[in-house]
Amino acid sequence: MSQGYCEKKSEGETCNEAENMEHLKRSSRGIVLDTIRKTERVARIDIANETGMSAATVTGISAELLSQGLIEEVAPDASPSDSRRGRPRVGLKIRGEAHLVAGVKIADRSAVVALLDFEGKLVGEFSLPLPHLKMSAQECAGFIRELMEAAMATNGRHLSDLSGIGLGMAGVIDAPRGFVHWSPSLTTRNVPLRQLLADTFAAAGPCPPIFLDNDVNLVALAEQWFGLGRNVSDFIVVTIENGVGMGIVINDNIYRGTRGCGAEFGHTKVQLDGALCRCGQRGCLEAYVADYALLREANISGEAFQDPNAEKQVQELFYKAKAGDVTARTIFQRAGKMFALGLANIVNIFDPKLIILSGERMQFDYLYAGEVIENMKNSVVQIDVSPPEVRIHKWGDLMWAKGAAVFAMEGVTERALRELSKNAR
Amino acid sequence: MSQGYCEKKSEGETCNEAENMEHLKRSSRGIVLDTIRKTERVARIDIANETGMSAATVTGISAELLSQGLIEEVAPDASPSDSRRGRPRVGLKIRGEAHLVAGVKIADRSAVVALLDFEGKLVGEFSLPLPHLKMSAQECAGFIRELMEAAMATNGRHLSDLSGIGLGMAGVIDAPRGFVHWSPSLTTRNVPLRQLLADTFAAAGPCPPIFLDNDVNLVALAEQWFGLGRNVSDFIVVTIENGVGMGIVINDNIYRGTRGCGAEFGHTKVQLDGALCRCGQRGCLEAYVADYALLREANISGEAFQDPNAEKQVQELFYKAKAGDVTARTIFQRAGKMFALGLANIVNIFDPKLIILSGERMQFDYLYAGEVIENMKNSVVQIDVSPPEVRIHKWGDLMWAKGAAVFAMEGVTERALRELSKNAR
Repeated sequence: MSQGYCEKKSEGETCNEAENMEHLKRSSRGIVLDTIRKTERVARIDIANETGMSAATVTGISAELLSQGLIEEVAPDASPSDSRRGRPRVGLKIRGEAHLVAGVKIADRSAVVALLDFEGKLVGEFSLPLPHLKMSAQECAGFIRELMEAAMATNGRHLSDLSGIGLGMAGVIDAPRGFVHWSPSLTTRNVPLRQLLADTFAAAGPCPPIFLDNDVNLVALAEQWFGLGRNVSDFIVVTIENGVGMGIVINDNIYRGTRGCGAEFGHTKVQLDGALCRCGQRGCLEAYVADYALLREANISGEAFQDPNAEKQVQELFYKAKAGDVTARTIFQRAGKMFALGLANIVNIFDPKLIILSGERMQFDYLYAGEVIENMKNSVVQIDVSPPEVRIHKWGDLMWAKGAAVFAMEGVTERALRELSKNAR
Repeated sequence: MSQGYCEKKSEGETCNEAENMEHLKRSSRGIVLDTIRKTERVARIDIANETGMSAATVTGISAELLSQGLIEEVAPDASPSDSRRGRPRVGLKIRGEAHLVAGVKIADRSAVVALLDFEGKLVGEFSLPLPHLKMSAQECAGFIRELMEAAMATNGRHLSDLSGIGLGMAGVIDAPRGFVHWSPSLTTRNVPLRQLLADTFAAAGPCPPIFLDNDVNLVALAEQWFGLGRNVSDFIVVTIENGVGMGIVINDNIYRGTRGCGAEFGHTKVQLDGALCRCGQRGCLEAYVADYALLREANISGEAFQDPNAEKQVQELFYKAKAGDVTARTIFQRAGKMFALGLANIVNIFDPKLIILSGERMQFDYLYAGEVIENMKNSVVQIDVSPPEVRIHKWGDLMWAKGAAVFAMEGVTERALRELSKNAR
């Protein structure tokens, strides 16, 4: 039983047909814009062919998008392949200067900022250490304002140049409400962080819209825009760092669950009454594969580390395992088995096309080696069709920040289209 | 990045704008039909209010649906509430005689048939024991033809009266292709069962379209149409019988995964290298909570049963546990703990609005008691918003068959709307 195609309104409200038609036209504008974005440089006629819209509709919509400065014309490509097909055609592309957006990733010890133009090109970056590993909500908001002011100044810009700021952090976050149920970076629960940030920025001048989400959802977005998830409608991103995260893309959209706390892969249980997790429960996948879990085991076996930094210690442990140290190997081996089990559960439930193991620590390939993937494949329901492909994608905090910027870009684009739609009425 | 709104075609093909508009009109017809179905009896103006379409559009579409005999007018309701609001209005309702559909559930030992009219009213039922617990593909097709012929004769009808047949069976089934990767009811894998059925029925005369799916997906459909899932856009159905099954509804649609083998809840692993499962792997949830798993434990403890039938034995074991037998209790207790763990994993991943524990065996409430649900709630990520509601819905094989009939009904409706759309061109 499908729903009406008018936008969802609060109960009791209905929307009229004119609004429905305008909604469809807005979708058409969005489809044209997406097509241009995906193709990078495309002639109007090819947009028509690609989308099934008439040439006239595409021309009309292009004119609107051009007049708003969201796209621009580019000189005909005089390459032989074009000229062979007749007169070279004027191309359309996204106009990079149309909007500037920022993405912020709050990592364990630092925050990283990426600045993207409307084409998605990286035009600036910046980072600062966190004042504390855990911040009060107020301190966090103040820090992000300072961070952004410094990031803009360093890149010769001002806050007022920004059309939107995307913010990704670990934790359970209700993205539509901009609400943090819980985050390891904050000292308190239930923080209406988006509102708090808006208030904090407003004190310094006009505040660009702020978009807030769980950081792994934003990695999934980055994969969709720039990475291995391009043109894949259904895929899953798993990250292992200090914790274990997951982003789910179904039908080209991030799946967030009804309370905004789906995709908590790290807290799926792999052992009844198992190892204690940071969350206070037992047997969570994270309690077997996250940094602290590996170090807990290393401590028990009396491992002595050179470096006081946990991340470095895990690295040391990893090199020991690689060099043949039996205890270190045992530690990584169990982690690998549990990780394979958790992954298999995801495949058995979602049956995705692709799984992307993503993040900075992918150099610890002991955990993600062929053996683990093989284990996973042996633990999924066996049918005579290949199990989903697993691909490994190493990248650093900057890519998380780029994902946050993309989230802001989507919000900014949606607003721009709504604006166009309002003017058209 | 959203897709164009033309229907997906094979690569390279595109569709033109006229087709797009016709697709939208077809959707409008579908929305009107769904609204009438949901409301049971509704005036045109209320459809307009509900959907946001203009009164003229609703009148036009109603006329088409009336002329095709899919809906009918009903006399004004002269109830006081109506007359108070002025002249009583003519209502629209689904025309029950428009189509007759059948649903078949292949259960462990028998097959059950439900006949529904186009209103979704049960107008006949029938069942036959299976010739063997496992059938060859050919035997299965032959049996289903005999079953359907007998079901129709018993209800004073003919096969030719049917607009569609829905078939639900356990296993890994690619519904869009009508292909059985594997089923416990069949002796062979990789069976193109829909084609085989079509050929088998065709030998006896014209064959109604056949729709094939995993049986738990069809329970989810039945919950959506008749049960606890009405008006819930995102929910999960879990069944425990001889195996453990799951159906996932996201955004009002059954989620099937990319290879047609998602939602394999019973084979998610709850224990590394754990108990042996019928599937040949270890540690599957099913290997702890399904009938055979409970009886395996009972056998080890030397339990003596009165009845050779496995289902009855589980019942006996259950009553022993209820009566305080320590071993029987221990068996159900571990099953309950594992079940809670598996359920918690689903909640941590999907964060659904509602979980429905559905099926015939819900009388074994030891497994589904408050304690289990409490355990589950304690094992999900803790935020200050209530975890999803868990509701228990006891019903028998007939409801599974009704779900299968609903699946056929959806297919038949889609075809009727496509037909209307073709005539309108």
